[in-house]
Amino acid sequence: MYQAIIAYDGTSYFGWQKTKSGPSIQEELEKALLQITGKSCSPEAASRTDRGVHAVGQVVQFSLMTSLSPQHLQKAMNAILPPDIRVLSLSPREFHPTLDAIGKEYHYKISPAPVQDPMERLYAWHLLYPVQFEPMREAAKYLIGAHDFTSFANNREKDPNCTVHSIEIHPTHIAIQGDRFLYKMVRNLVGTLIYVGYGKLRASDIPNILGARDRKLAGITAPAHGLYLHQVFYEVN
Amino acid sequence: MYQAIIAYDGTSYFGWQKTKSGPSIQEELEKALLQITGKSCSPEAASRTDRGVHAVGQVVQFSLMTSLSPQHLQKAMNAILPPDIRVLSLSPREFHPTLDAIGKEYHYKISPAPVQDPMERLYAWHLLYPVQFEPMREAAKYLIGAHDFTSFANNREKDPNCTVHSIEIHPTHIAIQGDRFLYKMVRNLVGTLIYVGYGKLRASDIPNILGARDRKLAGITAPAHGLYLHQVFYEVN
Repeated sequence: MYQAIIAYDGTSYFGWQKTKSGPSIQEELEKALLQITGKSCSPEAASRTDRGVHAVGQVVQFSLMTSLSPQHLQKAMNAILPPDIRVLSLSPREFHPTLDAIGKEYHYKISPAPVQDPMERLYAWHLLYPVQFEPMREAAKYLIGAHDFTSFANNREKDPNCTVHSIEIHPTHIAIQGDRFLYKMVRNLVGTLIYVGYGKLRASDIPNILGARDRKLAGITAPAHGLYLHQVFYEVN
Repeated sequence: MYQAIIAYDGTSYFGWQKTKSGPSIQEELEKALLQITGKSCSPEAASRTDRGVHAVGQVVQFSLMTSLSPQHLQKAMNAILPPDIRVLSLSPREFHPTLDAIGKEYHYKISPAPVQDPMERLYAWHLLYPVQFEPMREAAKYLIGAHDFTSFANNREKDPNCTVHSIEIHPTHIAIQGDRFLYKMVRNLVGTLIYVGYGKLRASDIPNILGARDRKLAGITAPAHGLYLHQVFYEVN
């Protein structure tokens, strides 16, 4: 069993998971591993990132018999994979990519400017209007901790309780760490924080939004192309 | 007459200048202005950037009669232009984009790493091996000033004398300012500096390379996709 840390530019993909709709990261990895070893396998990821979402530290598990060293397997994968998917490291490791994960960190890139930097159009959310960061930092304080995050989920989930460990508001990105996240929760948190930055919502509205368990009360879902799976945390064993 | 400051992601273009080979920045601007005003014009740029080269501060001149205010013309252009070309500012101004320019600044982005960051694959030169910045800074000192830069030009030019005002070596980019640059000179300066960073050339080789007036003695031409036209300087008038 192997653990691979991979990075990808999600622009051209329908997300992590294999789908008939179009290319996926999972399928590209499967195809590359089949071509290298002649064997089929089913790579699984720590986070099933959505269409258009990027990753700089996605964690992938796969099982495969090969005579190649991990170092050579990594080189072979990077030689065959399209250049928008890269294997950053590869090592033998017994683990479960989702069940063993104790937390994740996402970054969401923002670019506030009257005219968008064309080099960032696929990699950051262009904010046409200036945002006030201090109210966003105030709002973030209410979101940190263990809460029912139903108001920030685009699907009904069995267990809507998550713990957000930290939210950092930087001028170019928002960094969010938590134990787990509901469907589109990070993008809904970001959309809501930006609404606060725009003055459309107040920081003090957050407790009511959380308490109402109603998706309609929170802000919009921030677009996919600003989101990066930054890191997945596992217990050191 | 108008002066527009424009930015573009050069990935999809055959360079600034109109060509039958494929799309160009100049042609996209012509088409947008024709669509907005119903009139043809010939936008001219301060720098005819090559295929694949980016710009964050290209200066463009065009003459056109329109009842639109500069602000509305800018908005209309950004509404029609493809999202990889943006008009950052637009104002009425009498000037000549090349003859009145007294200097230019280019940035060249580098990304030294064992595995390339996929988000940077179209925007920085991936350097597979670590580079030593101090020898590069030493080499840069020999390049600054007025020299015959024949060894750094991919074409024979009537006047190969240029003045390089400054070269700054940063971990993620090299910034070069000068009064004018010969064909592919910035990319040849960067390729040569990286050779010094790799230890393939020594800083003390630079005076001989300059003196020999022989392109073969300098380093390789750095790839187009790391180069950015950063700024064009005009006399304040």
